[in-house]
Amino acid sequence: MATEPPAETTEEPGSGCTDDLAFDVFARDCPSRDALKHVTDRWGSLTLDALLDETFRFNELRRRVEGVSEKMLAQTLHALERDGLVHREAQQTNPPRVDYALTPLGDQVARQLRMLIDLVEDRMPQVLQARERYDARHAAR
Amino acid sequence: MATEPPAETTEEPGSGCTDDLAFDVFARDCPSRDALKHVTDRWGSLTLDALLDETFRFNELRRRVEGVSEKMLAQTLHALERDGLVHREAQQTNPPRVDYALTPLGDQVARQLRMLIDLVEDRMPQVLQARERYDARHAAR
Repeated sequence: MATEPPAETTEEPGSGCTDDLAFDVFARDCPSRDALKHVTDRWGSLTLDALLDETFRFNELRRRVEGVSEKMLAQTLHALERDGLVHREAQQTNPPRVDYALTPLGDQVARQLRMLIDLVEDRMPQVLQARERYDARHAAR
Repeated sequence: MATEPPAETTEEPGSGCTDDLAFDVFARDCPSRDALKHVTDRWGSLTLDALLDETFRFNELRRRVEGVSEKMLAQTLHALERDGLVHREAQQTNPPRVDYALTPLGDQVARQLRMLIDLVEDRMPQVLQARERYDARHAAR
């Protein structure tokens, strides 16, 4: 009866990625695809971007990220904490309070994300013009 | 009976955004939030990143973006075309073929997105270590 081998460390990309030497978001089972999703999905991206400026308590963050439900924000924070991007700090106060902040890794990722958000916000006049042209073209058919 | 006023141009952010002078993804109804979503959602981000390297036909793109369904890829391409990021070029050949390519605006956005993807892929060893620590901590409870 062979004993279970020790769990492999997951620091190498492994078989889910296109090759064993590099993480690749194009590969369906590569864990980088999930990590990118946590960073870029609707609530993950806004949460990271909000935390780039300051530390927030849960309800403060919920107000900042307009429209997020309590459940979705909790899920988002768990995923970002598990990926090592957000740090959850329970303060020993009465009543207890919990602060959320970026880790150094989260700060790096959030800074890169902020550049993308800035670009999209900056180019919105072009995007809206494109939408008008597209809709006019398709309404005319 | 007053006639309808002409439709307002949508080049100004308008009331959906936090103020009338700037687009703001944190505002629930600001159109920049949707545009960011199209750029960063699971299939939008991979589609833009794939097109950064080359022009693709629909089925080529579907193979490149592993796991995307025909329906989701079609929806993704429509949204990106409507936002002015992807150009759809129907070739006058027999049989007809359709190529998808980035517009100059799409190229700018995709380049910024690529930097974020590169960073996430590069930091995956740290992310996986964080996941292991998180899971061990929570399994121990």
